[in-house]
Amino acid sequence: MNRLETFPNPATRRYEIVHTIPEFTSVCPITGLPDFGTIIVRYVPDKLCLELKALKYYFIEFRNKGIFYEAVTNQILDDLVAACSPFEMEITSRWNTRGGIHSEIKAIYTA
Amino acid sequence: MNRLETFPNPATRRYEIVHTIPEFTSVCPITGLPDFGTIIVRYVPDKLCLELKALKYYFIEFRNKGIFYEAVTNQILDDLVAACSPFEMEITSRWNTRGGIHSEIKAIYTA
Amino acid sequence: MNRLETFPNPATRRYEIVHTIPEFTSVCPITGLPDFGTIIVRYVPDKLCLELKALKYYFIEFRNKGIFYEAVTNQILDDLVAACSPFEMEITSRWNTRGGIHSEIKAIYTA
Amino acid sequence: MNRLETFPNPATRRYEIVHTIPEFTSVCPITGLPDFGTIIVRYVPDKLCLELKALKYYFIEFRNKGIFYEAVTNQILDDLVAACSPFEMEITSRWNTRGGIHSEIKAIYTA
Amino acid sequence: MNRLETFPNPATRRYEIVHTIPEFTSVCPITGLPDFGTIIVRYVPDKLCLELKALKYYFIEFRNKGIFYEAVTNQILDDLVAACSPFEMEITSRWNTRGGIHSEIKAIYTA
Amino acid sequence: MNRLETFPNPATRRYEIVHTIPEFTSVCPITGLPDFGTIIVRYVPDKLCLELKALKYYFIEFRNKGIFYEAVTNQILDDLVAACSPFEMEITSRWNTRGGIHSEIKAIYTA
Amino acid sequence: MNRLETFPNPATRRYEIVHTIPEFTSVCPITGLPDFGTIIVRYVPDKLCLELKALKYYFIEFRNKGIFYEAVTNQILDDLVAACSPFEMEITSRWNTRGGIHSEIKAIYTA
Amino acid sequence: MNRLETFPNPATRRYEIVHTIPEFTSVCPITGLPDFGTIIVRYVPDKLCLELKALKYYFIEFRNKGIFYEAVTNQILDDLVAACSPFEMEITSRWNTRGGIHSEIKAIYTA
Amino acid sequence: MNRLETFPNPATRRYEIVHTIPEFTSVCPITGLPDFGTIIVRYVPDKLCLELKALKYYFIEFRNKGIFYEAVTNQILDDLVAACSPFEMEITSRWNTRGGIHSEIKAIYTA
Amino acid sequence: MNRLETFPNPATRRYEIVHTIPEFTSVCPITGLPDFGTIIVRYVPDKLCLELKALKYYFIEFRNKGIFYEAVTNQILDDLVAACSPFEMEITSRWNTRGGIHSEIKAIYTA
Repeated sequence: MNRLETFPNPATRRYEIVHTIPEFTSVCPITGLPDFGTIIVRYVPDKLCLELKALKYYFIEFRNKGIFYEAVTNQILDDLVAACSPFEMEITSRWNTRGGIHSEIKAIYTA
Repeated sequence: MNRLETFPNPATRRYEIVHTIPEFTSVCPITGLPDFGTIIVRYVPDKLCLELKALKYYFIEFRNKGIFYEAVTNQILDDLVAACSPFEMEITSRWNTRGGIHSEIKAIYTA
Repeated sequence: MNRLETFPNPATRRYEIVHTIPEFTSVCPITGLPDFGTIIVRYVPDKLCLELKALKYYFIEFRNKGIFYEAVTNQILDDLVAACSPFEMEITSRWNTRGGIHSEIKAIYTA
Repeated sequence: MNRLETFPNPATRRYEIVHTIPEFTSVCPITGLPDFGTIIVRYVPDKLCLELKALKYYFIEFRNKGIFYEAVTNQILDDLVAACSPFEMEITSRWNTRGGIHSEIKAIYTA
Repeated sequence: MNRLETFPNPATRRYEIVHTIPEFTSVCPITGLPDFGTIIVRYVPDKLCLELKALKYYFIEFRNKGIFYEAVTNQILDDLVAACSPFEMEITSRWNTRGGIHSEIKAIYTA
Repeated sequence: MNRLETFPNPATRRYEIVHTIPEFTSVCPITGLPDFGTIIVRYVPDKLCLELKALKYYFIEFRNKGIFYEAVTNQILDDLVAACSPFEMEITSRWNTRGGIHSEIKAIYTA
Repeated sequence: MNRLETFPNPATRRYEIVHTIPEFTSVCPITGLPDFGTIIVRYVPDKLCLELKALKYYFIEFRNKGIFYEAVTNQILDDLVAACSPFEMEITSRWNTRGGIHSEIKAIYTA
Repeated sequence: MNRLETFPNPATRRYEIVHTIPEFTSVCPITGLPDFGTIIVRYVPDKLCLELKALKYYFIEFRNKGIFYEAVTNQILDDLVAACSPFEMEITSRWNTRGGIHSEIKAIYTA
Repeated sequence: MNRLETFPNPATRRYEIVHTIPEFTSVCPITGLPDFGTIIVRYVPDKLCLELKALKYYFIEFRNKGIFYEAVTNQILDDLVAACSPFEMEITSRWNTRGGIHSEIKAIYTA
Repeated sequence: MNRLETFPNPATRRYEIVHTIPEFTSVCPITGLPDFGTIIVRYVPDKLCLELKALKYYFIEFRNKGIFYEAVTNQILDDLVAACSPFEMEITSRWNTRGGIHSEIKAIYTA
């Protein structure tokens, strides 16, 4: 798996960062067909901020990986929390309609 | 009635899942004319998650069934809570305009 | 005045119903010119739900009636509360621009 | 200055009135160039409601008056509170972009 | 750096001012390529208000400056708080998509 | 029926005028229920232009009149052509959804 | 199959009628799953206009019928031309996304 | 009346320029109430282009002038054609709703 | 490469079919990074129509293929024309912004 | 000035390419203040296509250059035609509002 990278938080006050990735794609583990969605990463950094170029490559790693909506959302939260130890982080995944159903998953971590 | 199916929740933290079904249709029990609407299922899973393919077939079962807005909303909440025993669940139904009136019903279950 | 009708609430839990009437029209009591607006009825039913066909005819009764924005909003709240004795009800009226002013009135009843 | 007028509040319950004036214009006191904006008047009436025709003429009075965004917002709040003694009132002014900056001011009065 | 200017707050009540600058541009310190974004300044003035013409020139100063999203957001908050000593201030920066990622940073100061 | 009024065309070149009336309402001759729609009057004036205040009252005359979509569209075209003898005129009527069907009628007159 | 009905065209000039049915639904003949779409009927009537109530029931007849997009579009054109013998008619069908593909079919008849 | 200014066309090929003025305001000559609209100037320059700062002051001149929609549209066309002798020019004026009627006027000049 | 499939055109008149694939993705042959876009297939069928399920698999074949915008658009046109020999066909590809540039390519085939 | 680059057109049929650059910025030669706009390049390639990375750097060259709307639009057309000798090319520039005026310029080249 691609290494997530960080850089030192340039500020000492608590503040909020939101990164939105509208071109996320993975593969349905049952049908093998591609899924498309948007991932929203909202977090309050402590000592470290997520570096954007490495973050981009991290998300591209899922391109040919078979994984369910609920699992990928929670895994991204686990991976990003491990990478930057934020005060809090929230991952939202919004998925294009499949079989007439649009889905959205939201998971929150608090230090 | 079609069987709802579930799969084990892949995560242990509390998190939120929203499924939106924009192509719901049932029949007005008085006029026999079709009703069209959107169903929104928001829930916090405990041990079980709702499987999407079975959920799709569950909603198609209403296609030729005569039922009122208020009744169908509460029945869906009862059926889905029974199927997956969530921490909490909210069903919203939004109905296309009939006789110049647009309606929306929202019912909540808390464990 | 047309009779509002009700039917027994099919559920026992507290839940919310919103009916939106985008084609409301009445008459300005000063100029005699027509007013156009949208009425939003939000309520939590107790024993009774508002029947939609009678509700439609109730609103059509205002078509040629001269009445101010503030008065009609409060009268609709009084009439609908009297008809179905809800746990709570909120009436919002949104009026098309007249003389360069767009207006919106919101009144709330709690049992 | 044009006289604001009022009429007796037709209801006794607390409720909310919002008037939006999308065609407000005044003059920048420094450049002499016209400013354009939207004024939003939100209030909870006590004994008196604002009469709309007089309100329209009150706002037209600003057409050729040089006044800053912050000053005009607070003056409108002072004038309208003096005219109708409401339980509470909020004035929002939203201004078209000038010099690449869009501005919005919001001031609140509570009895 | 261009001098920020202020003028005396014309009102004594607490109220809110929001300035939105949709044409902000700076330079990525790694690639040297331009970044584009929107800056939103929300504050509650105490004795001083920010003068808009000087504020415009302040933001233009960043046009050819290499600086990260997180750093520029916090620096603007520091600079504007120092200039007008408000009761509270919030800076939001929304950045156009780069490498498939849209970002938004929000920092708050309270006196 | 209210008299349509005209005023002398202030220009000699051929040019186009479009008046849009978004608050038109008449009555369905079969059900007696109100219809709501938008009327668009596009014309190239010859010697006469349609006066707007009289035009407003002309359209209000239809408020309690039972008439079909196709008939009202053609009647408006006949009436307005008779009133101002334009080089050409086009009437479009767009009707709110009734029974799940949205309708639009367009009729053209050329001198 | 439900009988389409007509009424005599109230006008003698050539003009255009457009009826839009946003709640059309039929069944995929391969999967048995419901399809949802919008049907647009544009025509220039000769002696006869399509009656709207019968038209509504005509479209409801497809609710449980298995039929392909291309076939249903051409059949509607054949049926409606047979019913009212217009100068010209155009049927457009727009279908909700299935398997990541949104489809639209347009067929034209000229007398 | 403010002088319109021009500058030499920097190109020799035929090309199109469109200037849109969304904050135009004049006064209704009958009621004395302000009118608000958008003016769109589309032209193909010959030797001269319209200078924008002078154009802005030209439009501000109408702020307190009583003039009808049809007249102001044709006068702007006459004035701007006289100022820059273009190959062709089109003036469109779109007016905010008055008395429930939205109007748009379009006049064209060809050399 | 996945086989495109066809079925016999159910109609004999000339008509138009448009399929839109909003989830197309391929890979940039220079950077190896994913591209995302929408493909629009518009055609007039002769004897054969494109079967949608095979079409879906055809487009998924590009998921990990390195190919330029201009080349992929022309290749799709060549492949689909070869598969169904239409009277005419037009392929449009719209690509998400890369390096601050949004691109769209359109190629047409006529028999 | 940065060199525009090209690559051989991969197709022999006539087809259309549109590149949209929503983040163009240059400087007003009179005030020295930044201008912001969108540039749209539409062309029909002959032997050569414009390479996108070089095109991006070409547009960044204007960032600190003082130039009028009309001049920059025609210069871009001249430069890009010289670089790739297309069958035809059209440049459109759309400029953010300045002094209450929004502008758009369109110039066309045909071989």
